[in-house]
Amino acid sequence: MEPVRQPGDLALAYLRSRRQLIMTGLSSLVRERGAAPAGWPASLHLGGTELMARLAEYAGRGKMLRGALVYLGAELCTDGDAPSASGIAVAMELFQAGLLVHDDIMDRDELRRGKAAIHASYRDEAASKGAFDAPHLGESLGICAGDICYFEGFGALARSVAGLPLGPGILELCSGELTLVALAQMADCRFGGLPEEPDEEAILAVYRGKTARYSFSLPIACGAMLAGDEATAKGLFAVGELAGLVFQLRDDEIGLFGDPAVTGKGAYSDLRENKKTLMRARLFARADAATRLRLSSIYGSPEAGEAEAAWVRGLVEGLGIAGELRREREELGVQARASVEGIPGLRPVPKETLLDLIDWLSARSS
Amino acid sequence: MEPVRQPGDLALAYLRSRRQLIMTGLSSLVRERGAAPAGWPASLHLGGTELMARLAEYAGRGKMLRGALVYLGAELCTDGDAPSASGIAVAMELFQAGLLVHDDIMDRDELRRGKAAIHASYRDEAASKGAFDAPHLGESLGICAGDICYFEGFGALARSVAGLPLGPGILELCSGELTLVALAQMADCRFGGLPEEPDEEAILAVYRGKTARYSFSLPIACGAMLAGDEATAKGLFAVGELAGLVFQLRDDEIGLFGDPAVTGKGAYSDLRENKKTLMRARLFARADAATRLRLSSIYGSPEAGEAEAAWVRGLVEGLGIAGELRREREELGVQARASVEGIPGLRPVPKETLLDLIDWLSARSS
Repeated sequence: MEPVRQPGDLALAYLRSRRQLIMTGLSSLVRERGAAPAGWPASLHLGGTELMARLAEYAGRGKMLRGALVYLGAELCTDGDAPSASGIAVAMELFQAGLLVHDDIMDRDELRRGKAAIHASYRDEAASKGAFDAPHLGESLGICAGDICYFEGFGALARSVAGLPLGPGILELCSGELTLVALAQMADCRFGGLPEEPDEEAILAVYRGKTARYSFSLPIACGAMLAGDEATAKGLFAVGELAGLVFQLRDDEIGLFGDPAVTGKGAYSDLRENKKTLMRARLFARADAATRLRLSSIYGSPEAGEAEAAWVRGLVEGLGIAGELRREREELGVQARASVEGIPGLRPVPKETLLDLIDWLSARSS
Repeated sequence: MEPVRQPGDLALAYLRSRRQLIMTGLSSLVRERGAAPAGWPASLHLGGTELMARLAEYAGRGKMLRGALVYLGAELCTDGDAPSASGIAVAMELFQAGLLVHDDIMDRDELRRGKAAIHASYRDEAASKGAFDAPHLGESLGICAGDICYFEGFGALARSVAGLPLGPGILELCSGELTLVALAQMADCRFGGLPEEPDEEAILAVYRGKTARYSFSLPIACGAMLAGDEATAKGLFAVGELAGLVFQLRDDEIGLFGDPAVTGKGAYSDLRENKKTLMRARLFARADAATRLRLSSIYGSPEAGEAEAAWVRGLVEGLGIAGELRREREELGVQARASVEGIPGLRPVPKETLLDLIDWLSARSS
């Protein structure tokens, strides 16, 4: 008897294999771009070599989903090799690294996947050298390091798409979607920092800009464009938006209902951060005045713990919000799968991987 | 009798005329890119329209030297129109705006050319809306706004160079030089924030990366490349490095010897900021122990005033540093002019403008 395939078995194996290729691409970039420019003595390179290695390590901490989706997008369109995929995938991971380096500063996160955030490591180094204001110097160096991720990302992109028929389109798409991500990040910063409650429309706009279009639509569409297939790129872009919303809704659910042993963080974590999720918006909209008061004292409180999380879980279930959001997520997953089926001519093996990825996004437990 | 032409008469008139063109280009960008993307309801555009207008206003506060140099580089190579110049010039000004938005945060500058810095205006708006931590929210929004300048800059660049034979080269050059600027900025942050004295080589590396190559070589070479003239681009790049060092050395000199009524800031301003200039390095290197002690109490002190500036001026002159740096600057100016003369085939009118610009960089009083 064949062992039963679990959702994600195919997709996760694919991500792992592509992650290897992207890491190799990143290493080449560090070697080439970490070197001083022609006619520039190494002593004047101002730490470029060390910085590139540091950024590559940081970029390599994640699953590299975005880079892998570039490969998948290309493979969905063509059986041949897509030699530019590596450069574009590296660019996606550099953009992501830059955004995360800056996010860590904005969110005052000390750690990124269990290791020091870039600004935190610069701060600690500065403190050990007797800096006048180590936290500020750490943040300043972190801002610059994030900037360099963008500059190098666009450089890698430009080198990779030179001569491709849809090259200019890929560059424009990346530029436009990165702007949308940053606009969504600004909205998110305001959600967190101002005493205003965003409505569902605004929350969804952030989900779309910051997660769905950027993390899913953009890389998979770029992959199809590098294969020269504009029509498929459009179709995959739409699939990406749906898949990205599935991802985000599942993320919100795991945040409250996930097993801390699997997710690696307490179920109270989103509560403490006062994350402006769709779930939270519906809770506040439907709770009565007394309940809303208690909710207000929990969301954003550094004291919120497992007991508070359990109470909120009960409320989310009692008010029917949990089931409702699950149905909406499942419906989006169905739409995403149907959108995949609606794109003509997709290569069968990568198509299977994409469908499995959608299932996994909805079912995953971490 | 013809009135005597002063150094800069030609160059400044040229900068003014090109500034008009770049402002028009920026306005089109705000119109086109400030709009919500296709299929994106305006309500979900998350403040993009307002942000683009804000960034264009900020970018428009300066002389737009870098944008003008793109035009000049193209005109030096070809008599015909260079329709892409506008887009590339706008891109240069967007990159510059992004770097300045981030610099303002790093330097804790409240004002940029007499108006509120971007992060400061966001902070004040946030405070008026009851933000929990307005300074931090202001900085976070400022980081994002700077990021968007880069993303939009690369977008404008990609649109402008699509189809140009040297288009990929222009994109790569911009990416590489922007990385060097950010590396130089990191070095500069460390100079300011750590109790270490940079040597002359390190100071010159920052001058080259942060000012000479980025502000002069890059835009003028891009202009020549868009005209398709790679050989001239190389020559102009070298001219730009020399001209940029002339600019920076004159900047340092004006900082201490300039007339506050003309420069708009006290002659003690660089002293208070403890700017790590070549002049400062030589002062500390040549002063005796007692003098060095007094210098240490002045550089970086918020109390430093006109009296201290006058004393430092006397010292710089007495130790022969002022004359020496003036001679070095003049020698660089001679080399820059000779480099211009060594490039064959430059169009005569823009060539005259470039030579006048070099004279002005060395002679200017503000």
